[in-house]
Amino acid sequence: MKYIAGIDVGGMTVKIGLFDGEGTLLEKWAIPTRTDGGGEQILPDTADSLREHLEKAGASLSDLTGAGIGVPGAVMRDGTVNRCVNLGWGVFSLTEALSSLLCGIPVFAGNDANVAALGEQWKGGGKGCRSIVMVTLGTGVGGGVVIDGNILIGAHGAAGEIGHIQMREDEPETCGCGKHGCLEQYASARGIARVTKLYLKEHPEKESSLRSADHISARVLFDEAKKGDATALEIVEIVCGYLGRGLAAVAEVVDPEAFVIGGGVSNAGTILTDTIQKYYVQSVFHASRGTKFVLAELGNDAGIYGAARLVLNG
Amino acid sequence: MKYIAGIDVGGMTVKIGLFDGEGTLLEKWAIPTRTDGGGEQILPDTADSLREHLEKAGASLSDLTGAGIGVPGAVMRDGTVNRCVNLGWGVFSLTEALSSLLCGIPVFAGNDANVAALGEQWKGGGKGCRSIVMVTLGTGVGGGVVIDGNILIGAHGAAGEIGHIQMREDEPETCGCGKHGCLEQYASARGIARVTKLYLKEHPEKESSLRSADHISARVLFDEAKKGDATALEIVEIVCGYLGRGLAAVAEVVDPEAFVIGGGVSNAGTILTDTIQKYYVQSVFHASRGTKFVLAELGNDAGIYGAARLVLNG
Repeated sequence: MKYIAGIDVGGMTVKIGLFDGEGTLLEKWAIPTRTDGGGEQILPDTADSLREHLEKAGASLSDLTGAGIGVPGAVMRDGTVNRCVNLGWGVFSLTEALSSLLCGIPVFAGNDANVAALGEQWKGGGKGCRSIVMVTLGTGVGGGVVIDGNILIGAHGAAGEIGHIQMREDEPETCGCGKHGCLEQYASARGIARVTKLYLKEHPEKESSLRSADHISARVLFDEAKKGDATALEIVEIVCGYLGRGLAAVAEVVDPEAFVIGGGVSNAGTILTDTIQKYYVQSVFHASRGTKFVLAELGNDAGIYGAARLVLNG
Repeated sequence: MKYIAGIDVGGMTVKIGLFDGEGTLLEKWAIPTRTDGGGEQILPDTADSLREHLEKAGASLSDLTGAGIGVPGAVMRDGTVNRCVNLGWGVFSLTEALSSLLCGIPVFAGNDANVAALGEQWKGGGKGCRSIVMVTLGTGVGGGVVIDGNILIGAHGAAGEIGHIQMREDEPETCGCGKHGCLEQYASARGIARVTKLYLKEHPEKESSLRSADHISARVLFDEAKKGDATALEIVEIVCGYLGRGLAAVAEVVDPEAFVIGGGVSNAGTILTDTIQKYYVQSVFHASRGTKFVLAELGNDAGIYGAARLVLNG
């Protein structure tokens, strides 16, 4: 039997999936990410863990036909990583380094957000679509563009950085990237909490169940909106307005078949996708009004699926 | 000898180029576009003209190995056109219709702006780049996205409609597309003239050589700016500010190697590209700051080059 490994390196854990040659997930597990010492143990740890699991299945590393790996940083077309700050990594050939630990098998690498987008296009919310844009609403706003089943990398590894589309020129606060008015400042989990607090402060006359919450978060906002709190619903409209207009700009460029919305914020469910879509349809060029909005389906497994798909894409 | 035909159908003329099998342009000419009768003569006229020119060269239609064609409308992946209003065309298989007039040779079709982008990427301002976004500043603001040497079509044939990225929410005037605040309203030839007139009206205190011009146009604006008129220079900054911020949004999505700026407005030269780039660098995510800004080089021939390239891409 031949195997494919799908690896998703995060700042806390390395998720590993073992797939058969057709891309069916056989087994998945995670190991801690050891970031000390410049993260030099991460790849050997991963290879050791793969070897152990293969041996338990009565196989060995030589039964792997390929491995895919997603990492939190820019990955160039030739498999070179260009600094993964969270892992302590500098610049080196990720594909060569991992391949040499895995008996020289072909290794394919990508940025984690892009690889997760590929996973969702293949087996998740975007299944059946040739081209999707995945939008990950988490700590930041991440993005991944998949065209005809392949990740769009970009000339500087920066395709899909849609969280940094500038939505407002008059934003006084600074984004983590140093710019002002990025989509991420309004639509990430942190951005949504910020917008919510600001709205409550600027509208002291508005009553809201949000005012009695211990802690304002994106989750609390959507929970109160779903319970019918009028002020929370107004804030949801504001946040989704930014997303709808931002994704309309994305559609003017790549015109995807679907937007797949993932990340922690997407646990809010269809109130999120429906409201984003409402503003999208108002803003987008008429030809692209029919674009689908779907929720991501693979959760934390999107990365290992996408990594395996990198191998199948060859 | 084997030939390739590159055809660019415009509302007034059909431009035709005859290329050798390696893609060298041997001869080019144009015929009138007969749009009467639902434009049903356009393809037969084109085929007849190709036959005549091939016969003059001692060849025949059977020496053509393929033809590419760009048309002013949306073209689906399967070669179906979806209405070309300027030609009187409805919905039909453009590739099949032209192929049957050309002895059954393979025909490849695309939207004219996209095909011109491919021509510029292959032989023009974007030569040597794998991925470019072409921006055509003419009556409208057109766009074409080329990724790894192939046109990005989009799920609804609307990729590259960058003229309809919304730049302002408070724009009172309506764009031709029915939306408000599209990039085209500030940066097309007409949009630039509009912005110029508005600025002169809103700043009656500002002296300017523009006030004595017979007619305000994008060309007049850039001419006066290049002569050093301070007010004209201020307006150039405004117009290029919209373009720089709009193209930054484009780069967050596809991160091209270069932006190729064409269309009538691009005759202004490097004052245009330099000023756009200044605002682009201020707005774009840091990884993409190095994107090149170049002027288009093929002028009206971009379409026939791109059409020939469609054939070579296969």
